[in-house]
Amino acid sequence: MIERKQIRDTLSQYEGDVTIGVLCSHSALQILHGARLEGFETVGVCPKERKKTYSSFPRAKPDEFLIVEDFEEILDEKNQEKLLEKNTVIIPHGSFVEYVGAENILENFRVPIFGNRKSLKWEGSRKKQRKWLEKADVKMPKRYEDPSKIDGKVIVKFSGAKGGRGFFTANSEYDFEEKLEKRLNEGLIKEEDVENITIQEFAPGVRYYPHYFHSIFYRKGAEVGDGSLEILGMDRRIEPIDESYRGLPDVPLDFFDYTVTGNESLVVREKLLVELIDIGISIIEASTELFPPGITGPFCLETIYHPRRGFTAFEISGRIVAGTNLFPTGSPYSPYYFEEPMSTGRRIAREIKRGIEEERMYRVIY
Amino acid sequence: MIERKQIRDTLSQYEGDVTIGVLCSHSALQILHGARLEGFETVGVCPKERKKTYSSFPRAKPDEFLIVEDFEEILDEKNQEKLLEKNTVIIPHGSFVEYVGAENILENFRVPIFGNRKSLKWEGSRKKQRKWLEKADVKMPKRYEDPSKIDGKVIVKFSGAKGGRGFFTANSEYDFEEKLEKRLNEGLIKEEDVENITIQEFAPGVRYYPHYFHSIFYRKGAEVGDGSLEILGMDRRIEPIDESYRGLPDVPLDFFDYTVTGNESLVVREKLLVELIDIGISIIEASTELFPPGITGPFCLETIYHPRRGFTAFEISGRIVAGTNLFPTGSPYSPYYFEEPMSTGRRIAREIKRGIEEERMYRVIY
Amino acid sequence: MIERKQIRDTLSQYEGDVTIGVLCSHSALQILHGARLEGFETVGVCPKERKKTYSSFPRAKPDEFLIVEDFEEILDEKNQEKLLEKNTVIIPHGSFVEYVGAENILENFRVPIFGNRKSLKWEGSRKKQRKWLEKADVKMPKRYEDPSKIDGKVIVKFSGAKGGRGFFTANSEYDFEEKLEKRLNEGLIKEEDVENITIQEFAPGVRYYPHYFHSIFYRKGAEVGDGSLEILGMDRRIEPIDESYRGLPDVPLDFFDYTVTGNESLVVREKLLVELIDIGISIIEASTELFPPGITGPFCLETIYHPRRGFTAFEISGRIVAGTNLFPTGSPYSPYYFEEPMSTGRRIAREIKRGIEEERMYRVIY
Repeated sequence: MIERKQIRDTLSQYEGDVTIGVLCSHSALQILHGARLEGFETVGVCPKERKKTYSSFPRAKPDEFLIVEDFEEILDEKNQEKLLEKNTVIIPHGSFVEYVGAENILENFRVPIFGNRKSLKWEGSRKKQRKWLEKADVKMPKRYEDPSKIDGKVIVKFSGAKGGRGFFTANSEYDFEEKLEKRLNEGLIKEEDVENITIQEFAPGVRYYPHYFHSIFYRKGAEVGDGSLEILGMDRRIEPIDESYRGLPDVPLDFFDYTVTGNESLVVREKLLVELIDIGISIIEASTELFPPGITGPFCLETIYHPRRGFTAFEISGRIVAGTNLFPTGSPYSPYYFEEPMSTGRRIAREIKRGIEEERMYRVIY
Repeated sequence: MIERKQIRDTLSQYEGDVTIGVLCSHSALQILHGARLEGFETVGVCPKERKKTYSSFPRAKPDEFLIVEDFEEILDEKNQEKLLEKNTVIIPHGSFVEYVGAENILENFRVPIFGNRKSLKWEGSRKKQRKWLEKADVKMPKRYEDPSKIDGKVIVKFSGAKGGRGFFTANSEYDFEEKLEKRLNEGLIKEEDVENITIQEFAPGVRYYPHYFHSIFYRKGAEVGDGSLEILGMDRRIEPIDESYRGLPDVPLDFFDYTVTGNESLVVREKLLVELIDIGISIIEASTELFPPGITGPFCLETIYHPRRGFTAFEISGRIVAGTNLFPTGSPYSPYYFEEPMSTGRRIAREIKRGIEEERMYRVIY
Repeated sequence: MIERKQIRDTLSQYEGDVTIGVLCSHSALQILHGARLEGFETVGVCPKERKKTYSSFPRAKPDEFLIVEDFEEILDEKNQEKLLEKNTVIIPHGSFVEYVGAENILENFRVPIFGNRKSLKWEGSRKKQRKWLEKADVKMPKRYEDPSKIDGKVIVKFSGAKGGRGFFTANSEYDFEEKLEKRLNEGLIKEEDVENITIQEFAPGVRYYPHYFHSIFYRKGAEVGDGSLEILGMDRRIEPIDESYRGLPDVPLDFFDYTVTGNESLVVREKLLVELIDIGISIIEASTELFPPGITGPFCLETIYHPRRGFTAFEISGRIVAGTNLFPTGSPYSPYYFEEPMSTGRRIAREIKRGIEEERMYRVIY
């Protein structure tokens, strides 16, 4: 495990300008664009075949490329060395966690990363997520330990399967078994995925995914949430299931796919925004106890809202989410915090800048 | 009834700066943000438990809070006094109308409010809305006085029930009776809601909710609509029914809920925009006859468009709608009118400013 | 056929300022707004009854109107003369192609137009579109020459019917015949539409319509796509079928209508954006061979994405599309290319400006 002390030592040796680094995927354009706006040099860890594309954005291309065969190579000693030489701070995003792995990052990645490194571990497992959200007193869908207990509509998820593949709904144990077998036969999921199966109550309602940002730089005497928690945007993910009605009345099976393919923007009723802010504060407070000093920087809660049930959260992401890509120049919420067009990527860069200015970089980089 | 003369007297006594006031709900952040951009002092009428949240937006928090237990307290003599002392103009929005009540506002609220006070009464009842839209020659869904007359798919609404709760579709009298009883038994609606039942033809098509703004400051010699009507944005409301397809094939009953939970942005084909502007002009002209001098400031039409049926309007709001919250820095339409990022909230503040500059505040405040 | 030489001669006689002209429909507001921002005079070819409306946008109204009874009158000798006198360059859009006709434009319209005139012919027929996309190696839905070959879910389209009217899905030859007859009987389609019938594999997935812009002004030594291809935005079209779920469980037939009524914004996963850029480059390269010098300026690909099938393209538009109307001040992608708020309309004006500055207007105007 990379100790915090080691990162602090590294940071203290960063002389001259800090470089912001990112894997060329997920939300890299936004992060690079934001870093540039805040005056940082940037480096893009990039598969060879993507270099041309990432070069084609004059205002979002990295100043320098670190070319790799695949993203995991960022762990290679010589690549870590290169990044350290450039005083790099890596901004973790979904692809970073997915391709490099939370365990690998915590154990073997010596380059400083933005935000509490431990949050990657807590967001990386459904079990830990549940513990975190339960501690924050956030309502979650009921979970079934065993298919024989199914007593209503459920949604079945696999944490091994990438991004929603093979997920399905079922109404009974029999329905569950039948659909599971079908997916195994079709190769949509594998036997080992079944070991990481989650059977959850199907929560009807509308999906709202608020993009939070928790700044560690409180005003003196302020409490959590007292100006330190921002809602920088909100989105809804787009999955093949979202166009299933176009196949009515006989919806092709291929529509029953929950892989995230993109995002769209929306706003929530203002009184529900107030609730979401309260929920965000509880999540920060819970994280402070579970993995001190808790979550800092961006995080996102995946919720379903129903007028009679309120908010139900079914997932938490402890880093920037791809939904923020909707808002490279700000969202319907960011103008209430910032005069400038403020993306989450830019917000991260600004937090690092403040850390540098106040000589407290170690407060936001772990 | 608060007479117009009384408001004019009050306004004439407003010495020094005008304060823009709003209930901390609905579209308050947008209104406060816009007021600030136009240089106004602001006051937020705010339930105690929301104060912390509304304080957390550096660029949208009110300069001063008027703390209440519930919004109706704004009617209390001492609160009205405080608002009058601060030269307050209240911006009415959905929560103001809902929690304080159109009748109460017209009879007992002495503080000047933006826009024609009487429009709140006209938008407050389905019957009056229908009269207004019929006068404007806007197509509306057929209305059934009696369930025995149902001869096609209908949607059943209650004006007592908040924001869409208990609404349902039916295909026949039998279907209607059965579903109504079910909702009564489940407590979704109450016996008294049934007295305010509306049975409407179900209009298939796409929902478009244009956000109009009618400026009373015409150029000399200009007619209605001749530069005085703006379309500042457009939205679609998001209700649980909008995710019902995710429950296919056996959609849980909880999805059949029409409560508005949020909004999303869209644009309409340009030739339909032209039609919507014509419709807007008719609505203004009708309002001028029904409640002179008619609607001023923001209003919104809730429409369904179908290529073979054209636009059908099923509701009209005579004040700012929550869908404008999508556009704190402007919409896909506002740049055709304004160089600056222009929200409806800011547009309102600007109209008041113009009223002050031209010493004709009484033209926009009632 | 209007030869390129003739247009070059015309352009060489354009003395003084160029005027940007557009038919007052489709994406005219955006184009006029963009032209104004880049400093151009503008002319709007406008049906009489729309003049008042198009005059009501202070920042998007044309400097001058050319009033017509219907859009086809733009072909009248005296109207062409007027446009030539004003040094007009027409920006072609969907209504221009629809109401004037690609054939008419190529044969009889002497006024210079932005972009490769021949692209209008290639985008105007489903057959040519298919040839273009096949050459670019873009995956398309399987096509059935004969209803007897239907072996899965298909979508049936008519190129005569406007914008999606009468389209339907079918599962078998019998289903096809039955539904076709029904639509003929109802007058939704006509006998002659059946001659232009297309029976396509129904591709399940999520719709993404990227808005490309191909600039002909390459940096020296650069290849196609090497900074010359921009993705200025992305949208999804809104059709009555998109609200069909609201009619569940017994969806009224009127919902099965595919007429485009508007557009909404979205973003795609960043790794899919990379794929879309590669596809865009292939499309440009194919066009260079099919109709040299190929497509220049804006074009749009109508795609469906499915995690297991990748992108399938079912249509290509060789000019500005109405979906760009979402972004008069820029999209979630344009900030990665431009500091200023950049719409496709403005981008076109800027390209013309560059052509003028470099005295190579003939490279972008045909």
